[in-house]
Amino acid sequence: MSLNTFGHLFRFTTWGESHGPALGATVDGCPPGVALDEAMLQRWLDKRRPGQNKNTTQRQEADAVRILSGVYEGQTTGTPIQLMIENTDQRSRDYGDIARTFRPGHADITYHLKYGLRDPRGGGRSSARETAARVAAGGVARAALAALVPGLEVKGYMVAMGERTLDRARFDWDAIDGNDFWLPDASAAPEWEAYLQALRKNHDSVGAVIEVVARGVPAGLGAPVYGKLDTDLASAMMSINAVKGVEIGEGMAAATLTGSANADEIFMGENGPEFASNHAGGILGGISTGQDVVVRFAVKPTSSILTPRRSITIEGDPIEVVTRGRHDPCVGIRAVPVGEAMMACVLLDHLLLHRGQVGAGPRGRIGPGDGMDR
Amino acid sequence: MSLNTFGHLFRFTTWGESHGPALGATVDGCPPGVALDEAMLQRWLDKRRPGQNKNTTQRQEADAVRILSGVYEGQTTGTPIQLMIENTDQRSRDYGDIARTFRPGHADITYHLKYGLRDPRGGGRSSARETAARVAAGGVARAALAALVPGLEVKGYMVAMGERTLDRARFDWDAIDGNDFWLPDASAAPEWEAYLQALRKNHDSVGAVIEVVARGVPAGLGAPVYGKLDTDLASAMMSINAVKGVEIGEGMAAATLTGSANADEIFMGENGPEFASNHAGGILGGISTGQDVVVRFAVKPTSSILTPRRSITIEGDPIEVVTRGRHDPCVGIRAVPVGEAMMACVLLDHLLLHRGQVGAGPRGRIGPGDGMDR
Amino acid sequence: MSLNTFGHLFRFTTWGESHGPALGATVDGCPPGVALDEAMLQRWLDKRRPGQNKNTTQRQEADAVRILSGVYEGQTTGTPIQLMIENTDQRSRDYGDIARTFRPGHADITYHLKYGLRDPRGGGRSSARETAARVAAGGVARAALAALVPGLEVKGYMVAMGERTLDRARFDWDAIDGNDFWLPDASAAPEWEAYLQALRKNHDSVGAVIEVVARGVPAGLGAPVYGKLDTDLASAMMSINAVKGVEIGEGMAAATLTGSANADEIFMGENGPEFASNHAGGILGGISTGQDVVVRFAVKPTSSILTPRRSITIEGDPIEVVTRGRHDPCVGIRAVPVGEAMMACVLLDHLLLHRGQVGAGPRGRIGPGDGMDR
Amino acid sequence: MSLNTFGHLFRFTTWGESHGPALGATVDGCPPGVALDEAMLQRWLDKRRPGQNKNTTQRQEADAVRILSGVYEGQTTGTPIQLMIENTDQRSRDYGDIARTFRPGHADITYHLKYGLRDPRGGGRSSARETAARVAAGGVARAALAALVPGLEVKGYMVAMGERTLDRARFDWDAIDGNDFWLPDASAAPEWEAYLQALRKNHDSVGAVIEVVARGVPAGLGAPVYGKLDTDLASAMMSINAVKGVEIGEGMAAATLTGSANADEIFMGENGPEFASNHAGGILGGISTGQDVVVRFAVKPTSSILTPRRSITIEGDPIEVVTRGRHDPCVGIRAVPVGEAMMACVLLDHLLLHRGQVGAGPRGRIGPGDGMDR
Repeated sequence: MSLNTFGHLFRFTTWGESHGPALGATVDGCPPGVALDEAMLQRWLDKRRPGQNKNTTQRQEADAVRILSGVYEGQTTGTPIQLMIENTDQRSRDYGDIARTFRPGHADITYHLKYGLRDPRGGGRSSARETAARVAAGGVARAALAALVPGLEVKGYMVAMGERTLDRARFDWDAIDGNDFWLPDASAAPEWEAYLQALRKNHDSVGAVIEVVARGVPAGLGAPVYGKLDTDLASAMMSINAVKGVEIGEGMAAATLTGSANADEIFMGENGPEFASNHAGGILGGISTGQDVVVRFAVKPTSSILTPRRSITIEGDPIEVVTRGRHDPCVGIRAVPVGEAMMACVLLDHLLLHRGQVGAGPRGRIGPGDGMDR
Repeated sequence: MSLNTFGHLFRFTTWGESHGPALGATVDGCPPGVALDEAMLQRWLDKRRPGQNKNTTQRQEADAVRILSGVYEGQTTGTPIQLMIENTDQRSRDYGDIARTFRPGHADITYHLKYGLRDPRGGGRSSARETAARVAAGGVARAALAALVPGLEVKGYMVAMGERTLDRARFDWDAIDGNDFWLPDASAAPEWEAYLQALRKNHDSVGAVIEVVARGVPAGLGAPVYGKLDTDLASAMMSINAVKGVEIGEGMAAATLTGSANADEIFMGENGPEFASNHAGGILGGISTGQDVVVRFAVKPTSSILTPRRSITIEGDPIEVVTRGRHDPCVGIRAVPVGEAMMACVLLDHLLLHRGQVGAGPRGRIGPGDGMDR
Repeated sequence: MSLNTFGHLFRFTTWGESHGPALGATVDGCPPGVALDEAMLQRWLDKRRPGQNKNTTQRQEADAVRILSGVYEGQTTGTPIQLMIENTDQRSRDYGDIARTFRPGHADITYHLKYGLRDPRGGGRSSARETAARVAAGGVARAALAALVPGLEVKGYMVAMGERTLDRARFDWDAIDGNDFWLPDASAAPEWEAYLQALRKNHDSVGAVIEVVARGVPAGLGAPVYGKLDTDLASAMMSINAVKGVEIGEGMAAATLTGSANADEIFMGENGPEFASNHAGGILGGISTGQDVVVRFAVKPTSSILTPRRSITIEGDPIEVVTRGRHDPCVGIRAVPVGEAMMACVLLDHLLLHRGQVGAGPRGRIGPGDGMDR
Repeated sequence: MSLNTFGHLFRFTTWGESHGPALGATVDGCPPGVALDEAMLQRWLDKRRPGQNKNTTQRQEADAVRILSGVYEGQTTGTPIQLMIENTDQRSRDYGDIARTFRPGHADITYHLKYGLRDPRGGGRSSARETAARVAAGGVARAALAALVPGLEVKGYMVAMGERTLDRARFDWDAIDGNDFWLPDASAAPEWEAYLQALRKNHDSVGAVIEVVARGVPAGLGAPVYGKLDTDLASAMMSINAVKGVEIGEGMAAATLTGSANADEIFMGENGPEFASNHAGGILGGISTGQDVVVRFAVKPTSSILTPRRSITIEGDPIEVVTRGRHDPCVGIRAVPVGEAMMACVLLDHLLLHRGQVGAGPRGRIGPGDGMDR
């Protein structure tokens, strides 16, 4: 039963509401002996932090993470790691008028229908602020991966926002960290910004597609049939607020391909099998191939907009809703580090599962004198 | 740890290989007192069964399911239900030549790299034959849903296959069961068949997109934040063989919308809140709204094709692979009942979770005299 | 995977070390709409709190619990409840000398062998201080049970300590809260105290047996075969620090009985079936009968004693260990509220499971016109 | 949610009723490459099999186990292993009269109260016949342990039956397999047999205590705080039919000891730390010490006896119940291989968890040049 918990062996449970005193993640299953301190986590939280430029919400949160347990003298001890982030810039007055109104596109109405009551301040539990806790947990996963799989790298970036899409021919890995959109094409960023600011001035918002890539993933992670690596990645990404679609490799476009075009042909490289292409997104039969693991997810446009939308009150009366407050015109931008965090957590989890169920590394090798060497 | 198990309260574990003596599902958590017999399950297995027309594999399997436990005098007892399907038409000789070769696009190479050995006959555990067990488990879920939520209906159909896409203007719910493609447009079926047969004759295969809709789903199913209804649906569909993408409602296209266009406006209907549109696919904040729940998934083209593809042997030597045997030119067709089964299982699971964690039905009502009535 | 988590639908994960900044419990799965505030939890923490009389450790901890999430305007919202207790009276200097020594009877050596490092301050994660978090979680369970099952009562008391055993003929339910030993026999308390103080002066400690009874438990809670009510109670009690045995009803003494003596004969009472005796401890086939649920557990003597014991250092050198610091001469005393908390958690968990899997209450009634009424 | 499932990484789900067509276990998480065939499992099933001597039930069941999946060419593949045992000697007519009557001490009444219906034939799901499936699963665990931890041995035996108790001074490991009572004292067996036959002739039954010991268990298995090795052992043994108490090491008697007497002093042996005694039963802080792991459990007397007991019918009418049919006068005898199976499963599970979460073996060594070597 993992309603607020994610993961199998490496697990985290997030807790907290947008405008409560604090929120955080209870991380269980991190291996012992991993170097970890707050600065290592803060780096990723700062990447997600709001109020850093005009393309995101102006809420000012330090998002300072504290490690309350599970680390001793700079190393993880194998016991639960409690990560707490205090809320400091709650402006609950912004939300007083939505306590008895359902904002279209928000979880207000479903929480009310399910639970009969809800914490309306800032969306309570359904706020995207919950993702700060994921990013902190993802920082722990990154630290453990760094210790266990040197060279593994996880990176996310935007590939589409409304009518704008990335020109793959101009893909530049090094450009990603250099602009507000985590866009792998520095030349396009100004145009994306103009597009987004026009939408914002028009009291509107827009959706986005984020791609997350993991390089250096060992072959053999994942498991048939419900513990597939792609199954858990789909679950991970779909659990992020506002996500409506998840793709692995070719994704939905796989439907348009023929079998001969889609086959990733195999040949023998210097260090083992290699592939002529990566339509599969680095996963076959739910298990990693050793290629880049490639996941994309679509984030719907921010539902909190200044354009009036029709809705009803808790009494069932019609009302026009205009959502004031401080909101991202494209939540997809800040979803980039969240997607990275989820990828890191899934990979670490499957690495630990693999070590537990099979061994310390992939069992089957390929090549002369190998065959079924175990 | 649910590597071969799916679900929380309503759970099933599938077992079995394509060419072993049998396969099946161990279903746990079905409520007691549900009318159930083998014929009720067989109906859905027959829908998935191969060899029924020229658009699917010619393997002839009766796929006769036996209930070995958990049912007494025609009713479930609340104890585990073992569903067994014996394999009768294994032609393992077809696979003798692939035991030491990795077929491109298949799980052969990843199973080898992970486990060091594999059952190569028919793909072993990675065969789509595993989905027969899911369809049987889904039949149990359907029976329980019929008892607990009268009027709930789950239906799947194809919306795209290679270059062909459904014309939504011609959508006809009643046409779905009348053609080999579960196509909601009877007029298009002949054209789709011609397209597929041409591909088959060309020794090729093609992908597809399946949409599964659930009507009559109560509001309130699902839970924040990792036990969301859409999270579990994403996991459910991505776990199906060959699936590379999953969408809820607008899906990937949500990225192209503005917030004003994407908002499903709310008004008060006769029996409670209604929505002017369903971009959300019936789910907000991970919890069902009471609208149709709409999921789509993309199935990649069958990797087993007669067109030669380059690969390597277990010794690392280059080889050209032509996959003989009996294969579906479009596995997406037979994925339709599988998607339906997974939808039914997820809905029953979340219904039971909701009853356990909250109550017998949605707690919050909307309208005069209500407010936060519990 | 529930290494630091307990429960199925009502779950809690404890975190924190004895001398870290804080410890707590992340509680997930509490139903919404339950009245809850910090004072309701503090009541139980105060019962467990150290330093209250000369029979327990003199460590002074306020053990003030804060609710950081999951409660809004005095009611649970159905989202995770974070309970945090700050450590205020750590005297880590007491433990400086044990960082490189293994105290006999303690987890020092096994944590070292397993993890390669450990937080030695106060026993770190293995300290009985972890049970404060359980008691807080148990307070949430009690609040939910009070709302869902009026009249249900959970009570623990001591039945043995070293050479002293309770005289069952003098059992007095009302005496339990009136003495330092939670002893249901006020007249015996002075003698127990004299016995314990003599041991303490002799630099020794002693074990104890605690019995926990739940009255008013509905029939039908529990499930075959691994989710039995008694299975989960055994797991719950054995997870408490220093517990070495768990009994249900007759417990180990059941081995000495004949079948005719052990049978709890059934007769028809005014409100349903009743039993002539309760050898079973209120559980048959893993499912509650409606009688009192009776569990006992044995707590070993405190391992931290001033009597020198032989051990080794981390370098493998022999050493005599005398454990200074502030320790309970009989940890069993303070285990009473911990046992109560675990009982409350297990009962709530199984109540929610029962509602989810079967219905809102027991399905089968007994008596005229009933039979298999559903 | 593991209501009919046991284990974390190595898991099995049992299914089947006493008089249904078959019963079995779905085993998930066995590592690949373990040599396994049906004969290896049958050995343990034969040990539990009824009808072998006059001290057990005369029901004749071949209990022939079939492996339906997960094994290829004599080796496990890492995929689920389905173990099926067909029922061949059901005499359901023996149970016709109990369908509407509740046998005292049986689960009849609680299943009725919970589920509203039950399979009454032979006790249905609550029959001790379910333990055959556990023994089969335990055989898989034994095979995997043999491959992963050479020298590890699991052995069970009786230490008490009614008024008879083992004379520990006469303990003889080699005698265990030589008598019908798995008694480590050959000289006492005739007396135990006479005692049991006298009870049987008197239409009565009796309880027993079984001890299970594991030798050669590596240090470091287990985990704080709810995934303790002893917690899982308590859960494992308490889940066995008719078990009412579980003890680790000193067990309930720990309550009578002083801290100075209970301390297992540590010294440095040739190959690492050793202990002067084993009051702890090989587990400290939930983690194995490397000593023998010692568990005991009490089995209540068989409830099915020919001595009349008072009860009620499903209509609530009084009735005298005499349970005919073929029953063990002491079910404890046949619980010995069941306890062994559960021990093996718990150890394998924790071994895999340890490998997954920490590494391939204990991390911390003790002795010169070690300290916190990782």
